[in-house]
Amino acid sequence: MDRLSLNQITTKTWSVPEAIAGCAEAGVGWIGLWRDKVAEIGVDETARLLRRHGVRVSSLCRGGFFTGVTPDGSPVDGVADTRLAIDEAARLGTGELVLVVGGVAGNDLAGSRQRVADAVGELAPYALDRGVRLGLEALHPMQCAERSVLSTVDQALEIAEEHPAEAVGVVVDEFHVWWDPRIESSIAKAEGRIAGFHVCDQLVPLTDTLLGRALPGDGPIDHRRLRRCVEAAGYDGPIEVEVFNAELWRKPGREVLRQVVESYRKYCVPG
Amino acid sequence: MDRLSLNQITTKTWSVPEAIAGCAEAGVGWIGLWRDKVAEIGVDETARLLRRHGVRVSSLCRGGFFTGVTPDGSPVDGVADTRLAIDEAARLGTGELVLVVGGVAGNDLAGSRQRVADAVGELAPYALDRGVRLGLEALHPMQCAERSVLSTVDQALEIAEEHPAEAVGVVVDEFHVWWDPRIESSIAKAEGRIAGFHVCDQLVPLTDTLLGRALPGDGPIDHRRLRRCVEAAGYDGPIEVEVFNAELWRKPGREVLRQVVESYRKYCVPG
Repeated sequence: MDRLSLNQITTKTWSVPEAIAGCAEAGVGWIGLWRDKVAEIGVDETARLLRRHGVRVSSLCRGGFFTGVTPDGSPVDGVADTRLAIDEAARLGTGELVLVVGGVAGNDLAGSRQRVADAVGELAPYALDRGVRLGLEALHPMQCAERSVLSTVDQALEIAEEHPAEAVGVVVDEFHVWWDPRIESSIAKAEGRIAGFHVCDQLVPLTDTLLGRALPGDGPIDHRRLRRCVEAAGYDGPIEVEVFNAELWRKPGREVLRQVVESYRKYCVPG
Repeated sequence: MDRLSLNQITTKTWSVPEAIAGCAEAGVGWIGLWRDKVAEIGVDETARLLRRHGVRVSSLCRGGFFTGVTPDGSPVDGVADTRLAIDEAARLGTGELVLVVGGVAGNDLAGSRQRVADAVGELAPYALDRGVRLGLEALHPMQCAERSVLSTVDQALEIAEEHPAEAVGVVVDEFHVWWDPRIESSIAKAEGRIAGFHVCDQLVPLTDTLLGRALPGDGPIDHRRLRRCVEAAGYDGPIEVEVFNAELWRKPGREVLRQVVESYRKYCVPG
């Protein structure tokens, strides 16, 4: 249980102070923070609450959008914004910044992917200097057009491998990669570069491309198998439970966290 | 234009007689048929109408569901049903049967994939005897749980390569595979085994996992690039426009077919 981390999107109704206090109360020693939530009270106040409650940050979410394509169509300077995110991560005491790299510009998939590689190259030295690793997260192919032209761990790894392992890693999120016929070998190749392991399940039928997540155990994902893979590749860091689910978001945070702990214990801990 | 085929799901309101007559009237020489539609008038009557109108069948859709997992949860004997589909394809004068292999049984992805390989092994000689090729279609990873544990062309090819090229091939459908970082090399490896090429676009945002398709040109897919890939791999057969789209399905078939021809001409023909 000492590796369980609450990704705060799972308890969306909770503010940062509520989520940190909630974790401390439930004996959950890690939290994955989101920048928009942190911004509500500020980075310094968040850092103070973390120290006071003895909760550590497993990762900060998120930088990226290097292709200029965002889900809501708003313009963004991904490189500049990610520099800010790197600074925030360092001040929050986490070495892991999750990147969502951005969707397809026009219909130029290859060019969009090149823009991602270029941006990572530009940012890697900045991140390394600040002790923060850029965590390239492969997102599910159904999010390729709008959110991420990185669709597989293999592909994220190809970009990461151009840089020191302390500067650029890959985030393995079960929801995004469980279907991948190459996932075992891809994770094995990622040894030393796994910057995070996020667990959840997939709703069946999958009625929503973003909110189609469920608590571990409620879908087709074999969590113990994937955990064995990341551990065989040397990952022994925190394991974030990250669930985007409209029904869960209607429940009180404390009840959600109770269910997170229960499902993690039942389905994600080696049996 | 002589390679354009109307996949009849695109004109869902049309019956088989309407679709065949509609193609003939519009100068479209090929049609991709669906078994449920054919069943409404029978295989023999369909074959008679095809001869009368001079329209050929590019493929019959579909056999498969070898894992026993179907979208609506109904039980199915995939192997027995696919034998029937092979017979129907032969009687309709097409050498290509599209297979949707079935979703994940429980959370055993590897076992489900093995069941597919086993079923294909069982059916390949039967298909070969009747001059029908089993077309393994990789479906989008978002359909892995419910419809298809084959998610990439590479993976479909690994199963196909165990059998003669005349017995088992792969169907390349743009909607399902456009995001794949390995698609170019996978298609190149499929030389001699491409059993069909289906074109359409993806809606952005992708609001529905099944109906999130659009006519070519309305999304992020580079149709000319993918066409160059399949042609470089030796495919010179019919090209099906296959669009599941609720809005399109509300329009009269003739208007839909007009838009199919126009978008195909504008975005899918080498420029």
